[in-house]
Amino acid sequence: MLHRRNFLRTAAALTGAATFCPQNLWAEVAPGMLVRSDKPLNAEPPLADLVKDFFTPVESFFIRSHGNTPEVDIKTYRLRVEGLVGKPLDLTFSEVKEKFRSRTVAATITCAGNRRIEMSAVKPISGVQWDAGAISTAEWIGATLAEILQMAEIKPEAKHVWFDGLDDVAKKDGGFENFGGSIPIEKIYGHNKPTGNVMSADPVLVAYHMAGKPLSPDHGYPLRTIVPGFIGARSVKWLGKITVSDQPSPNHYVADAYKVLAEDTPAEQRAKDPIYETVTNAAICLPSAGAKLSAGKNSIAGYAFAAGLAGNRIKQVEVSIDHGRTWTKAMLGKKKAGAFTWDLWTADIVLPAGDVTVSCRATDESGFTMPAEKPWNAKGYLFNSWHQVVVSVQ
Amino acid sequence: MLHRRNFLRTAAALTGAATFCPQNLWAEVAPGMLVRSDKPLNAEPPLADLVKDFFTPVESFFIRSHGNTPEVDIKTYRLRVEGLVGKPLDLTFSEVKEKFRSRTVAATITCAGNRRIEMSAVKPISGVQWDAGAISTAEWIGATLAEILQMAEIKPEAKHVWFDGLDDVAKKDGGFENFGGSIPIEKIYGHNKPTGNVMSADPVLVAYHMAGKPLSPDHGYPLRTIVPGFIGARSVKWLGKITVSDQPSPNHYVADAYKVLAEDTPAEQRAKDPIYETVTNAAICLPSAGAKLSAGKNSIAGYAFAAGLAGNRIKQVEVSIDHGRTWTKAMLGKKKAGAFTWDLWTADIVLPAGDVTVSCRATDESGFTMPAEKPWNAKGYLFNSWHQVVVSVQ
Repeated sequence: MLHRRNFLRTAAALTGAATFCPQNLWAEVAPGMLVRSDKPLNAEPPLADLVKDFFTPVESFFIRSHGNTPEVDIKTYRLRVEGLVGKPLDLTFSEVKEKFRSRTVAATITCAGNRRIEMSAVKPISGVQWDAGAISTAEWIGATLAEILQMAEIKPEAKHVWFDGLDDVAKKDGGFENFGGSIPIEKIYGHNKPTGNVMSADPVLVAYHMAGKPLSPDHGYPLRTIVPGFIGARSVKWLGKITVSDQPSPNHYVADAYKVLAEDTPAEQRAKDPIYETVTNAAICLPSAGAKLSAGKNSIAGYAFAAGLAGNRIKQVEVSIDHGRTWTKAMLGKKKAGAFTWDLWTADIVLPAGDVTVSCRATDESGFTMPAEKPWNAKGYLFNSWHQVVVSVQ
Repeated sequence: MLHRRNFLRTAAALTGAATFCPQNLWAEVAPGMLVRSDKPLNAEPPLADLVKDFFTPVESFFIRSHGNTPEVDIKTYRLRVEGLVGKPLDLTFSEVKEKFRSRTVAATITCAGNRRIEMSAVKPISGVQWDAGAISTAEWIGATLAEILQMAEIKPEAKHVWFDGLDDVAKKDGGFENFGGSIPIEKIYGHNKPTGNVMSADPVLVAYHMAGKPLSPDHGYPLRTIVPGFIGARSVKWLGKITVSDQPSPNHYVADAYKVLAEDTPAEQRAKDPIYETVTNAAICLPSAGAKLSAGKNSIAGYAFAAGLAGNRIKQVEVSIDHGRTWTKAMLGKKKAGAFTWDLWTADIVLPAGDVTVSCRATDESGFTMPAEKPWNAKGYLFNSWHQVVVSVQ
């Protein structure tokens, strides 16, 4: 348990809106940001905003929260590292910034529930009704998790690393718990034992900067994990504790949620494994659904992101205006920033008059192509069939 | 057990030298190839041959065998796929080539025992006395293991995939067994369940071509696995059987050998995990040790290879002629061919007259730099301290 949790909850009760204050938030988010829920705060940018820049401006970056946005007193803040380690640590914010090398990693982060709204249209699913905007890209700066674990003298029997946030998430029984995630140790070291020797060029970070500035409150200030290639739920905000273990975290968001389930029952939850890697996905961001366009050549633009094994890449993106009978290859943007970042793409397409359904699909270098249809699942995760928008052409 | 094994052993007995015939081999290997043992056949190229081309010619590619080089009758050959699968398979050679997409992967393969001779100089180690030439790079063509396992309907409880060769390896008790390797399932699918959806751009192959031609007998004809980023022992030649399991292979070369051991005892073997990923390494290939050079500017050349997580890359290679007091940055070659291929490098260094020790070290993008010294281990694996050659300058 986090010893600061009770303090924070009390502080929240005393300061009221100051701890969770959409009014304050508006200063931080771009105009037009789509707030899907305000307690907890979940917001995504209009799709058109995603293709303006390879790196999403902080104010347009999607926000995913499960509880409050904690106000952290940086003077008393400590990052606790414990579990299967020889030397538990209590690191101040400054120590995390100063005792370890600073690493910059460009990474696209996407919610496992991105595009849930499309699955909900088939059969309603509870949870945040995300359109295709629960994905964004930023440059993150932080210490590598590997170096922090090395200082803590991680033990060879380590198999998973848990991350606990400082937030308070309402439980069904009326109590609170923090949001938590965990990752298998191979994400850090491969299958070799922890030695500090084997790491990715896109390592797991304990990040303190996003887009060159300290994390904003809603993006996890003071520290969050960034796990490139894994679903966003493993990049835990307001990081309070790291626990090394021989098993995955017992936190609700690892043990029960963030699983692909045929039906959302305790038995199914127990039977299924947590989701870690993302899947290959793509969406049309421009034109917007319902846009009125002129017949003739129009520019279509969007993003594509390859499934989460390093070395996988988007190979091609295709656009169709005849429901997949014929496809036109899109042009991939030249910008590449890391193994786990998206590609932005554009295609010039001649549109005929009438209501036109524009579809897109991506193919990655593994040979996987997004399918026309994808089976519904009870929590609405990892939806990646063709993305479509209907536009009105005159 | 492989039902063809007894047949092959009998055939070997009948045909004698035809099954293992260094005379035939000489036609296949480059002049000057250094044969470290002839039964089993183990050979490495002179280091100077490694830096002639980014892709090592087949005749210069190092050869690592643990038993005989089996003669396989392609008409009766079958690749068996069994274990935790819904539909066991017996695939002919043609079926492997025709029923699956053909994929090309450039990969550097290196023996875990590369540079063992240097560790042996400290305290003798049994095993092949490899110099730094047990590493080579080729383009491989094959079916992806993922597609073969998908056809076999791999079950969700799969955790490891075993590979068994058709060779006969002498056991201590006088009997024979085949060489075997295995890989954890995450190497294929990440941490998601087998779906065929998540794969690397440098996937594990069941390869039938090397450098555009069928595998030669000593490189595994008709089929071998290629596991990019893992030690060569997991790229099993003369592949006869693939077994899906919930645990690592019980084969000697997974269960006992290819482990980093303080002493080579059964207790230590049981306590330690198999090696999977390679480590970051580099060597000076030119000039050769003992070369006579003229004082002044000389070109130094070699290879460097980053540890086996995709996305890791060689960041820099440095050369020193004063035992590491000062270092000169080498120039990395421009050629890149995949996530798991080496870099060749060169450095122009002014050499003074006298006996000069030239050292090199590589740094990868994880921040790891090859150390001046590395602890000895009982089997002589993963040696990667600075590589040094002494030359005579006049």
